[in-house]
Amino acid sequence: MSGSIIKLNSAIISAGSVVGKKEREGPLGTYFDLHDEDDRFGQKTWERAEAEMQRLAANIALSKCDMNEKSIDAIFAGDLINQCTSSAYGLLEYEVPFFGLYGACSTAIEGLMLSSVMTSFGVYKRCLSATSSHNCSAERQFRTPLEYGAQRAPTAQWTVTGAGAFVTESADSENACGKARITEAMPGISVEKGIRDAGNMGAAMAPAALNTLLRYFDESGKSPSDFDLIATGDLGYEGISILLELLGAEGIDASGVLNDCGMMIFNRETQDTHSGGSGCGCSAVVLASYLLPRLERGEIKNMLILGTGALMSPDSIKQGLGIPGIAHLLHIKGSEVR
Amino acid sequence: MSGSIIKLNSAIISAGSVVGKKEREGPLGTYFDLHDEDDRFGQKTWERAEAEMQRLAANIALSKCDMNEKSIDAIFAGDLINQCTSSAYGLLEYEVPFFGLYGACSTAIEGLMLSSVMTSFGVYKRCLSATSSHNCSAERQFRTPLEYGAQRAPTAQWTVTGAGAFVTESADSENACGKARITEAMPGISVEKGIRDAGNMGAAMAPAALNTLLRYFDESGKSPSDFDLIATGDLGYEGISILLELLGAEGIDASGVLNDCGMMIFNRETQDTHSGGSGCGCSAVVLASYLLPRLERGEIKNMLILGTGALMSPDSIKQGLGIPGIAHLLHIKGSEVR
Repeated sequence: MSGSIIKLNSAIISAGSVVGKKEREGPLGTYFDLHDEDDRFGQKTWERAEAEMQRLAANIALSKCDMNEKSIDAIFAGDLINQCTSSAYGLLEYEVPFFGLYGACSTAIEGLMLSSVMTSFGVYKRCLSATSSHNCSAERQFRTPLEYGAQRAPTAQWTVTGAGAFVTESADSENACGKARITEAMPGISVEKGIRDAGNMGAAMAPAALNTLLRYFDESGKSPSDFDLIATGDLGYEGISILLELLGAEGIDASGVLNDCGMMIFNRETQDTHSGGSGCGCSAVVLASYLLPRLERGEIKNMLILGTGALMSPDSIKQGLGIPGIAHLLHIKGSEVR
Repeated sequence: MSGSIIKLNSAIISAGSVVGKKEREGPLGTYFDLHDEDDRFGQKTWERAEAEMQRLAANIALSKCDMNEKSIDAIFAGDLINQCTSSAYGLLEYEVPFFGLYGACSTAIEGLMLSSVMTSFGVYKRCLSATSSHNCSAERQFRTPLEYGAQRAPTAQWTVTGAGAFVTESADSENACGKARITEAMPGISVEKGIRDAGNMGAAMAPAALNTLLRYFDESGKSPSDFDLIATGDLGYEGISILLELLGAEGIDASGVLNDCGMMIFNRETQDTHSGGSGCGCSAVVLASYLLPRLERGEIKNMLILGTGALMSPDSIKQGLGIPGIAHLLHIKGSEVR
């Protein structure tokens, strides 16, 4: 039974996104709900700015469906920063049961998955999941503070400054009408293939995405052609090219359908992000404000989204350990597909 | 509906504990499954030692019920260290879906709670939850490396070197016979009351324990006298004295029944731990190897355990923020109580 698909029946009834200046200037910029021109969101530190973004994203998601903290039964949230303080502080004002998560950049999908399990199986009526990343807090957390001006490798990705939040309910609820529905989950298994370079997380995470996709295709009997889109969270150009190659070696051609939120969010030619965007916020805001509306309009009928995460820490990198990757998969259907 | 009790029907069919030298020398020392005389567990760094402890605890828990990784459907795990690497690396060899958690010292109970929800509601047949803390990795993570010889305040606690793992199934399963059963959960709400001292986490967490207990007593109609034991995870002597006072102000007398895993695990007179033990591993090993056997023998018929956590990071402390606390509650019944 280990590693099998969980059948779900939930709907994302609302979502909110908050981004920074660079994300606003990217190709998806106008879709996001809120941005700040100096990425500080009125706060004195980058960590507090990130927490504030998460608070704002959660507020937006709730206000869009005319709800408030009293309407939700539990929060599932996490982020990249030490001890997940962006979530802990950002969502502190919510007097709601709080489940702290750590899935690195997979956290958006991990949180959505657990919210979806809870609402599908009747544990809770309505859940909020939230996550965030901030370029400036992440760079000093995982690599070097921006002030050092360290040169970035071509394989390096640009941590997205963004926070996303989602409200989920059972797909049988009234509020689910016309919304995207989460029908299956395939939780990720940690995979470590010897990548030790914190500037090449795409390579560390691609084998985990492969692992999850192979298990999903194997059990479901489906193939890439069954989907309009298979979106990974933040493999970037480097990771996606590796994943396509790894899938090809298994005889699977996903080239027409595979895309990456980290590739969608920035303009490769003009925004100088090297291998593309990354971070918990990357998949969160792209799903919340770009993909979900397309699902709701029926432009996407069937998609897989894989939250990809690199489970290293600054200390594990210094101690020379490989970077474990993980990829949590959700099958999301557009509103018209029953 | 926010903040209400989740009715559960799961059983802890097996548990494993691994501790360090000081924990072995404490009053519960002989109960633990495994210890290491130099706290290194054969590893070169404290972080890797902690990861190894978590691996060993999980192996012990599985071997005690004659199972292996193929027997479990999912792992719920987390720890205190940056980006939860003790869990990510310690459990990397398990090819099992992995849900990373961050609940600070509440993680043992958060993981057990989610495992219990999954097995009670039929999402999964069998889950493993695991957590750890290590005195040497935690001190340099949150306060100062031990080599600095910093003087500890009287309110400071001693992070337990320990890892615990639990295997859960539905209480209706064959393996549940004679085992302790988890019948209710009351997930915690984050509470921050202005404590800014990383050397006084008992004071930061006590209001969160109060919040959860008041909500639980209010909804269930129960009182402390309905339980043989109400065990908090790691409030320590300072936090317990605050909690008793806070409960007293609400007209609730818990003095005869309230105890703390951090007070149980060390000898206050001879082990110089100041306010008692703390850390994810504290509640995990005390529950796994001291309380669970008592529940299984029927010596404890009804208990509440509250995983208490302080959701700060080194950065949030340096930035002058208050420490949010959280307390996840489980109602566990002994084997003879139906």
